[in-house]
Amino acid sequence: MSQRVADHLGGQLDAIIDRLGQYVACASVSADPQFEPGMQAARDFLTHRLAEIGLENVQLLDGGGHKAVYADWLHAPGKPTLLVYGHYDVQPPDPLPAWDSDPFVLTRKGDRLYGRGASDNKGSSTIAIESLAAYLAIEGGFPFNIRCLFEGEEEVGAVSLPAIFERYRDLLKADLVLSADGGRNGFWPAINVGCRGVHALEVTLKTSAMRDLHSGRYGGTTRNALHDMARLLATLHDEDGRVTVEGFLPEAALPTAQQRQHAAELNMDEAAFFATFGGIAHGYPEYTSIERLTLMPTLEINGLWGGYTGPGSKTVIPNEAHAKITIRLVAGQDPKATAEAVMRHLEAKAPEGTGVAIMSDRGGAPAYSLDEGSPLVIAADRILRQITGEAPVRVRSGGTSPITSTIRELLGIDTLMFGFSLPADGVHAPNESYAINSIREGIVCWPLMLTELGRVWNESK
Amino acid sequence: MSQRVADHLGGQLDAIIDRLGQYVACASVSADPQFEPGMQAARDFLTHRLAEIGLENVQLLDGGGHKAVYADWLHAPGKPTLLVYGHYDVQPPDPLPAWDSDPFVLTRKGDRLYGRGASDNKGSSTIAIESLAAYLAIEGGFPFNIRCLFEGEEEVGAVSLPAIFERYRDLLKADLVLSADGGRNGFWPAINVGCRGVHALEVTLKTSAMRDLHSGRYGGTTRNALHDMARLLATLHDEDGRVTVEGFLPEAALPTAQQRQHAAELNMDEAAFFATFGGIAHGYPEYTSIERLTLMPTLEINGLWGGYTGPGSKTVIPNEAHAKITIRLVAGQDPKATAEAVMRHLEAKAPEGTGVAIMSDRGGAPAYSLDEGSPLVIAADRILRQITGEAPVRVRSGGTSPITSTIRELLGIDTLMFGFSLPADGVHAPNESYAINSIREGIVCWPLMLTELGRVWNESK
Repeated sequence: MSQRVADHLGGQLDAIIDRLGQYVACASVSADPQFEPGMQAARDFLTHRLAEIGLENVQLLDGGGHKAVYADWLHAPGKPTLLVYGHYDVQPPDPLPAWDSDPFVLTRKGDRLYGRGASDNKGSSTIAIESLAAYLAIEGGFPFNIRCLFEGEEEVGAVSLPAIFERYRDLLKADLVLSADGGRNGFWPAINVGCRGVHALEVTLKTSAMRDLHSGRYGGTTRNALHDMARLLATLHDEDGRVTVEGFLPEAALPTAQQRQHAAELNMDEAAFFATFGGIAHGYPEYTSIERLTLMPTLEINGLWGGYTGPGSKTVIPNEAHAKITIRLVAGQDPKATAEAVMRHLEAKAPEGTGVAIMSDRGGAPAYSLDEGSPLVIAADRILRQITGEAPVRVRSGGTSPITSTIRELLGIDTLMFGFSLPADGVHAPNESYAINSIREGIVCWPLMLTELGRVWNESK
Repeated sequence: MSQRVADHLGGQLDAIIDRLGQYVACASVSADPQFEPGMQAARDFLTHRLAEIGLENVQLLDGGGHKAVYADWLHAPGKPTLLVYGHYDVQPPDPLPAWDSDPFVLTRKGDRLYGRGASDNKGSSTIAIESLAAYLAIEGGFPFNIRCLFEGEEEVGAVSLPAIFERYRDLLKADLVLSADGGRNGFWPAINVGCRGVHALEVTLKTSAMRDLHSGRYGGTTRNALHDMARLLATLHDEDGRVTVEGFLPEAALPTAQQRQHAAELNMDEAAFFATFGGIAHGYPEYTSIERLTLMPTLEINGLWGGYTGPGSKTVIPNEAHAKITIRLVAGQDPKATAEAVMRHLEAKAPEGTGVAIMSDRGGAPAYSLDEGSPLVIAADRILRQITGEAPVRVRSGGTSPITSTIRELLGIDTLMFGFSLPADGVHAPNESYAINSIREGIVCWPLMLTELGRVWNESK
């Protein structure tokens, strides 16, 4: 029956692109206060549009930062509730000279639409909103209750989202989340069944020297913080790139046979992957690149500095050195315990006479996994088979979608990332774009997904 | 007779400190082009002052880099000529937040004067200039001819000094050099009979990736330049701090039994030495600290950087990393061959798939030794016995006075380093300072040294 909805939407493509253009025209850059009028405009656009399509209780949710936009349709008493998630904020358009067209004027070239947010997340959010609109217009209602939440801080770490979930606990009560955010990672048909978590550390190593020393007056007699930092960081991995920190990778965090099978089914073209950036394969040689990217954790030094880094040379023996580290976490790795294992390692391996101070309070997120038995996975699997005629692969992201773990932590429920971005969209970069075909595919998939999810929920009762 | 000069100078201490303050106020950082106005100011200060005290032919000598300041007094026909050497450039003041007072405002606290260059070399140069001034004022002339050379590139490897010696060969013709640079190394009375050489390298390591990578989209699959740099630098020393580079320390460069005996005679108080800066002993454990400082070479990482070093965290996999390295050379180590050994080591140990580019063209200097029979050593020995009542020990500096080896190479004459810095001055570090007592001692020693050197020269005729 939702095929009627999809068919209706297919005839609306020009109007949908037109509305996406209005949405992109709202320059809603959350990171930069001078874009506040654009943030306001995007909220106005959403509140107007969500009310226009027949959703109710349209309102702003204030968590102390950029307000989120809320709307609902609660006319399925006794039925479960789906929370539809998206975000209306976008990345800064910098560097502006690199854009071929105005980032806030949706510009069609060939089969692509160019503009900041055209893909992330206004394009995929538009698929969700238009699907809800058509569903309501054609079917007169949904097979379950719907709540919508479009936040305004996804690009700045969703800082006040926990406060919003806390403050509007009843309003956001739901059973599952379908997210318009997230992408297709180059695989199709595919279901996003997980992502890695992330945890940041900053390490400061100090020798016992009370200041930097002149290498002519002290060189050879005493410790050099850069030698010590290099030696210390070199202990974090073995020659093959395996993390050597005790307690970093417990048995429970190793990839399962099923996960490895799913990874193998992706048939990733390794040569093509490495050719995109010129890199060479490195890391746990007992795993494939797609396994290392999605099923194995990493411990990466993101920044390293100490001593004299200006022009010319300076014969200094530095007494301190610094490193920024992030850990990409997999399921089975407790973020706190993992960070503590790294901290213990660094403290234990620090040479005699040096002190290591580690900052570990920048927040982060655990890894996230969606079970095969989740109604979200079952419904997505069925509709993607139906639409594409193929069995959808299970894809895990090497990156982190904090929303999924935040929602699981705060509301105890599962989220399916069901956005339609593609790697070629260049999200966060100049000339971000969205394939018109992604809209075509999205407005078929979303209505079918809503119907199928209702069916799975009914079956499981 | 020069005691009268010294006595006169003793009464001028406040005025001398005042002039040192004007000199320190010239922010003459030779390494950084944005300090060019400070370099100019220091040259202006010197030309004005050298003319004011009665020296002649005051001029700038252009070797293609920062110009040197020259002045002379040539009214002792038939007598030898002494070249007085100093440098007006200073080290960069970084890290600025570590300074307790403005590095370019000479700040008196207790019995010390704080500021960049307060010790190295503006403090000791001031002793030389004030001694010449008083000698001329009180005695009416010198027992031999005097030429003064204050260069502006000592802190950046004296790169154009050879060109200056070449271009102004006649103007700089001299028999011996008395240098206001160099320090007392914590021993007194002492004569500097040698120093280590220095050679600078800058290492850039690049992975094959054509850009920095996002750790969510690539993390775990490929190389990280910071991991590779840390591992590479960690191969330069063993756990005890011995340099592990093949060909770095040939048999001929090992300390001789006599050198070790001389070092032992210094009776260095190791505990006191380390207490001055809070460091602990580290390096070739088969040698004492004074031996490691003066008779053994070093390979020090002076600066290290790569990736994201700003506030917060950024999940980047850097594709390049940088390190600044200097080698302190001892007699028996050829600078070029030693640098090449280090370059070969770094290239050989660089991980597969990374490229290492090494810059080794910043100049440098071999180690230097002064004979016991030099008039400079004889004169210094006599006046130090006279002033202190003790036999001065022979000290070798762990630092480098490229001037000594450059002058020997280009002019074929000897140099005595006769500066009055002390280890506690913290030269090159934040809060560099100079003991007011060093000025008091310097303005006694320099006039006596001028007189005594004239006497030794007369005796040897």
